[in-house]
Formats: sequence, C-alpha cells, structure tokens
Amino acid sequence: MNKVGKQHLVYAMGPNREPVLRVKSGERVVFETCDCFEDQITSVDTAFDSLNWERINPATGPVFVEGAEPGDILSVTIEKITIADHGVMVTGPDLGVLGGELNTNSIRILPIRNDYAYLNDSLKVPVNKMIGVIGTAPASEEISCGTPDLHGGNMDCKEIKEGATLLLPVNVEGGLLALGDLHAAMADGEVAVCGVETAGEVTVTIHVIKGKRLPLPMLINDSAIMTIASKKELDEAANQAVKNMAEFLVSELNFEKDEAIFLLSLAGDLKICQVVDPNKTARMELPLRYVEDKYDLQILIKGQKILS
Amino acid sequence: MNKVGKQHLVYAMGPNREPVLRVKSGERVVFETCDCFEDQITSVDTAFDSLNWERINPATGPVFVEGAEPGDILSVTIEKITIADHGVMVTGPDLGVLGGELNTNSIRILPIRNDYAYLNDSLKVPVNKMIGVIGTAPASEEISCGTPDLHGGNMDCKEIKEGATLLLPVNVEGGLLALGDLHAAMADGEVAVCGVETAGEVTVTIHVIKGKRLPLPMLINDSAIMTIASKKELDEAANQAVKNMAEFLVSELNFEKDEAIFLLSLAGDLKICQVVDPNKTARMELPLRYVEDKYDLQILIKGQKILS
Ligand SMILES: [Ca+2]
Ligand SMILES: [Ca+2]
Ligand SMILES: [Ca+2]
Ligand SMILES: [Ca+2]
Ligand SMILES: [Ca+2]
Repeated sequence: MNKVGKQHLVYAMGPNREPVLRVKSGERVVFETCDCFEDQITSVDTAFDSLNWERINPATGPVFVEGAEPGDILSVTIEKITIADHGVMVTGPDLGVLGGELNTNSIRILPIRNDYAYLNDSLKVPVNKMIGVIGTAPASEEISCGTPDLHGGNMDCKEIKEGATLLLPVNVEGGLLALGDLHAAMADGEVAVCGVETAGEVTVTIHVIKGKRLPLPMLINDSAIMTIASKKELDEAANQAVKNMAEFLVSELNFEKDEAIFLLSLAGDLKICQVVDPNKTARMELPLRYVEDKYDLQILIKGQKILS
Repeated sequence: MNKVGKQHLVYAMGPNREPVLRVKSGERVVFETCDCFEDQITSVDTAFDSLNWERINPATGPVFVEGAEPGDILSVTIEKITIADHGVMVTGPDLGVLGGELNTNSIRILPIRNDYAYLNDSLKVPVNKMIGVIGTAPASEEISCGTPDLHGGNMDCKEIKEGATLLLPVNVEGGLLALGDLHAAMADGEVAVCGVETAGEVTVTIHVIKGKRLPLPMLINDSAIMTIASKKELDEAANQAVKNMAEFLVSELNFEKDEAIFLLSLAGDLKICQVVDPNKTARMELPLRYVEDKYDLQILIKGQKILS
C-alpha cells in the first residue's frame, strides 16, 4: 500500500519540494494528515499565544505521479476519509467574518460520535467530512498551504469529499500532490475561519489525464460538475468560476457562448466555498444531467480512453 | 377577493406612492404581474433598441396594510405563484457576468410546458417559480425596482417562492408592498442577468408583526431560516448576511456571540442570490432544526401571539 505518514508535512506547495513517494497513474495512495493546527491544541486551555503559527495548515506530501508532465491534468478521486474522534474550532478578534465583533479568542474541542460533532451537549451538527487543503505544485513560485489559487490549495470547498473527483493542473513534472486540513464538518462560507478541524486519513486514486485543456480546478461528484475559482475578492472569484464553466461548456460540449450563459443562469448555481482565507473561493455547480449525455465524464475521472 | 391588476405598476418603491389597495393584517391578496420587460418582448425578432428601457422591472402595487406602522415587520407568506406558458431571456454585451465576452444581444422565448422551460428542443430546465422583485417603501428615498436593498426590492432570491414567508421592514405607514418580476426558473447567481422572465399572478397572505426588531429582510421556508443582504460588492453582501444571522441568534435565541459564529461556520450555508443587479445579494441559510426547538417561528409567520 502506498502510504504517506504525517511526518511528511509541507507548509507551502512549490516546484522544488522533494517528493516523499512516487506512484503510477491509476494507483491508490493513503495520506495521513494532521489538523490545521498541526495537532497543537490539546485542550481548551491551550493558550492562543503559545501556538506556533508557523505550523499552520500543514499538508502531507508531496507525491510524485510518474508520467505527469506540465500541461497534463491530475485527476484525484477521493475514495475514503477517516477522521479522529474529536475536532477543534477557534475564532477571535481579526479571525473570520465577525472577528471585529469579538473581544477574546475562543477555542473549542468538539467530541465526534455517532456521526455528529458536538459544540455542546445540546448543540450538534452532522458530520460531513471534507478536505480543506489539496493541491499540486505551482510552476515557479511557492504558495502557502493557507492560500487557495489556480493550483488548488486551501480551497475549503465542502464538496471535496468522499466520492468526488478533483481535477488539478500539473505544472511541474510529477504534479507533486499534497493534502491536509480535514474538516469533520463545515458550511459554505466557513465564516468563523474554520470548520471542525481534525486529523485523519485520506485515501485517493490518482490518474494522469493527457491532451485536455480545462479551466481548473474542477470537481465532479455524483450530482454535479463544478468549476472552482479563488481570488482576492469574492466578486472576482465568483465571476471567474462562471467564466470557467462557460469556457468548459463552449470548448468541451460545443455550446454557443450565449446558450451556455443562458443555461448557467437557469441551472448553474453560483456558490461560495469560503470567504475567510487570503483568497476567497467560489464555485459554479452545474447538475450532471446537462453534461453527461453529451460527454464522457469517465475520461476526466479515470482517464480511461486517453490512457488506454 | 383582494386583487391588484397589472395596470397598477410602479418602477420604484417610495414613501409617496399612492396605494392601490388597502387590506387588513391577515388578509390574502392576489397580485397580477408583468414580466420584467413589461411584456414588451413578443418575438425573438423584437429589436433590443426598440425596447422602452424605462419600463423595466415593473412591480404591481403598492398595497397599504392597515395598522402597519414604522418599526413593525410585514410578514408576507407566498401562497401561490402562477406563470404564463412562456418566458423570455436576454443577454448581451455589458449584461450579466459574461457580457464582456459577447458581441451581440440574444433574445430567447422559452415555451413552458409540463413543468419545464425549453431553451431549445433538447435543452430544458425544471420550472422553479420565484419572485424577483418584492419590497416595501423605503422611509424617505425612492429606490428603483431594479435595485435590491434593505427594503427588499430586486433581490432575485430563488428561495422567495411558494410556501416561503418573507419578512420586510415597515418604514412608512401601511408598509406599501409591491411585487413583480416572476421567474419560471433561475439559478443562484442569475449570471446572464435574467431568469426565465414571465408574467403571472402571486397570492400572498400578509401579517403585521409588532414589537420585534430583526435584521431584515429575512426569509423562512420549511427547511431553513435566512438573512438576506444586498450591497454594491458581493463580499460586503455576504458579510452582512452573516452578521445579520449572528445578530438574530444572539438577540432572539440568546446565543453567545462566539457560539453563534461557530454554529454558522458549521451549519449556516452562505449563499449567493444574484451578482448582476446594481447591488449584489447574498443570503445566510440556517437549517430550521437549530432554531425551531428554541423559538416559536409562527410568531414571525402568522404574528399569532403578538396580534392575539
Ligand atoms: Ca482551510
Ligand atoms: Ca481548516
Ligand atoms: Ca480556511
Ligand atoms: Ca430581477
Ligand atoms: Ca428578472
């Protein structure tokens, strides 16, 4: 079994990171991950100031995928996410949307049992496991694992969960995939600046797709296909996600531009992933029924036809 | 039956509009509405330039609700929406998110049958009837029916549909409710600048709620409670919707501020209504289960306890 332990952490994604594992297209890999505080918070009495803020948002990896060359696409299918029996939340002044209204920091440790995370004895939310940070290496610069961008990264998109396939750009040889920052639950917006932050394990299957130009990152699950965009302003991220999906419809499905726009206006929900990271992230979700009868999505999920 | 015909149109909501109907709290009213082009587009050959752009986004009304005084809340339950057998869509340069990528205007007339609207013979979207424009009079200024703001207006929120209850501010005596701009279907974002624009009829029941201060507009349906905010920038609209819901949780449900924020980060989806009007509109959606066991929502829907 290909497994990357959580001793292999990176705090930025970049072209010169040394791979810790090499796999072939089609192989399965297990990533063991820390929570976004690198498991530093062990009680609600942990002092905020005592946290080492240079050990935030670690990702496990990177993994080198053989045959992946710049211009290719890395298709990452999330087979399984397992999480710890508890998670952590923090908020405070200058954190999240309402930081300005808080005077002190708050830390919570949430027990997770029977598929619920407990804010307190009488307030629980359903577990909805997802991956906060997942990306490939940018071509030349290093990007902090706390920042989402064209390479993926800290997108905090709640649809990046079991059963979904994420499409990421290959910017450097091997792609250099890394991931971390699991959430036991998070709502669109992530308004406190965090979900239920938890350690765990993620099993993915990776395929290399060649010969396709797509507006990445994209995500496919069993109900929708999505474009994901991250920009300084939410307005820009939202517009870019729309533009990307229209480009996909025109270039891959041969829509006329105006028809693509009409369809998105009627059936493509423009949604928010998060509004609290250095770039904000939006997604355009189009139900699969508008795509799957005209297009072989398995090409993007398994790379079958292209690799055969 | 209280009915307002579509000869009674306004293009702005303001405190000095003459009411066309007076009703009591608890009464039902039917509004007959034009589409957002005031039914001017009758074929795809209608020249864009020939449209009278001063007759855009008409709302039917306003209706004076007896006993509604400044500081009260108008609770508007949408009982029924009926629509015409066709709708209109337009997009073009400078319209919508992707106007910059279009060289010519496009007009479509979509047949509506068997609960689908047809973009063409092979491309149909499910009917999902909603109200684009609905609001009360602002206190002093007039606001164009094309602009959403604190008074409601052109929010283009797809959750303003049958079965939902919208809470609007009463800024002037009688409230002066008006509505129009029905859509047979629209996705979050409304990225082309329109939904399937259609004429129709809306039946609402109106209640006056006294003695409550809420961050309006708010919306309640059978699964969620929502705050809705409109601002020049989507970033600001989204932040305001979050702030409003936190305020509701703190002031009405006695949450601690940090706990309210944590809950919203885990269970409150921050969503986009539209990104194409003069103000952009966002909503925060919190599932009812976090509210209904602690709070009598019927007070907001029927005003029962308060009016009894
Ligand atoms: Ca994150
Ligand atoms: Ca996180
Ligand atoms: Ca985050
Ligand atoms: Ca509208
Ligand atoms: Ca409209």
